[in-house]
Amino acid sequence: MTASTRVPQEERTRLMRARLLDATVELLVERGFAGTSTTLVSQRAGVSRGAQLHHFPTKNDLVVAAVAHVTEARGAALEQAAARIADGAGRTRRVLGMLADHVTSPVFTAALELWVAARTDPPLLAAVGPLEQRIGRELHQRTVELLHADESRAGVRELLQATLDLVRGLGLAATLSDDTRRRDRILDEWAEVLDRELALTQSHEPTESHEHQETA
Amino acid sequence: MTASTRVPQEERTRLMRARLLDATVELLVERGFAGTSTTLVSQRAGVSRGAQLHHFPTKNDLVVAAVAHVTEARGAALEQAAARIADGAGRTRRVLGMLADHVTSPVFTAALELWVAARTDPPLLAAVGPLEQRIGRELHQRTVELLHADESRAGVRELLQATLDLVRGLGLAATLSDDTRRRDRILDEWAEVLDRELALTQSHEPTESHEHQETA
Repeated sequence: MTASTRVPQEERTRLMRARLLDATVELLVERGFAGTSTTLVSQRAGVSRGAQLHHFPTKNDLVVAAVAHVTEARGAALEQAAARIADGAGRTRRVLGMLADHVTSPVFTAALELWVAARTDPPLLAAVGPLEQRIGRELHQRTVELLHADESRAGVRELLQATLDLVRGLGLAATLSDDTRRRDRILDEWAEVLDRELALTQSHEPTESHEHQETA
Repeated sequence: MTASTRVPQEERTRLMRARLLDATVELLVERGFAGTSTTLVSQRAGVSRGAQLHHFPTKNDLVVAAVAHVTEARGAALEQAAARIADGAGRTRRVLGMLADHVTSPVFTAALELWVAARTDPPLLAAVGPLEQRIGRELHQRTVELLHADESRAGVRELLQATLDLVRGLGLAATLSDDTRRRDRILDEWAEVLDRELALTQSHEPTESHEHQETA
């Protein structure tokens, strides 16, 4: 029965890459971008320096792949969570709670580290910019679907973009202090406002023109 | 007439400290927290290492003092700008524009660098935490006054907190890409929502109790 206990090469490579990427995210969360080094990552992942450099030649390769990797894993988890959100009264608040869980998770923290480091690191920015745009677009699309919102109506797209920027602002605030109660009260209020405003856009025709071409 | 051309010692010290703090903010914006060193700061400010170390013994002393310094300077500028905002139609949008100018300014960028660095640097966090709380409270109070908002009414405090978190989220997004048009459209919509919602809270009594003790 040796064949069944042996892990194929391809699978071993996949697992090793996953260990490297998970270790990178852990280090970004614990020590920040500046405190994360490829040496620390290979140590924590239990992967030789040679193998690590083969798969991810530079620190930038590693951190961008790591954030993309956990974002995909998180995306799958979000999809499952989203499917379980009940319809009816309070749905908007539950959707906002899900978004808030996302921006207070290690995935958001790791992405924030990359985001801020990329501002003053042009090669990193070239890789992080498109990744952040993709993440932003996906989160926006998911929010549209979860709230059953009709973006062809005036103001709806901007209202949802504002919601996501608000949630990111709350995520940023949460990195300095644990302000769960403040965040909950703000989201309670915002859920009420959002329900009223989305209902408004459905009860009458738009009175002014808005542009909707751009992506999030 | 030597007395009138000689700069008193106290004034020279004040100017030297200001040069050090301005150079620190410039470097935080250009190179980020990790790329800012006390050596670079003293070089750029044209101040000897000895004098710099005398006034600010550590990098953390320097960066925290620098952000406090520019925040105060910015506070005075904001106060003047605020006094010039015209009353009447469009006032809410103009107030939001002023807040957006703030979070897309170098002062916010420098503060963001400190903020993110402090997350993984406990001594820095001990100094940055209280500073950020003070800045947050002052900005909140200024917004209340500018919008002539009545925070004793249910939901108003949370709505203004949401506004400031939204604006911070927009500031964060602006560090990665110049999205002035997207930001303007979101603020146009938010101003309408804010006007409608603030009018709502004034047209009927609150139907549920909220807590208002906590500070921003």
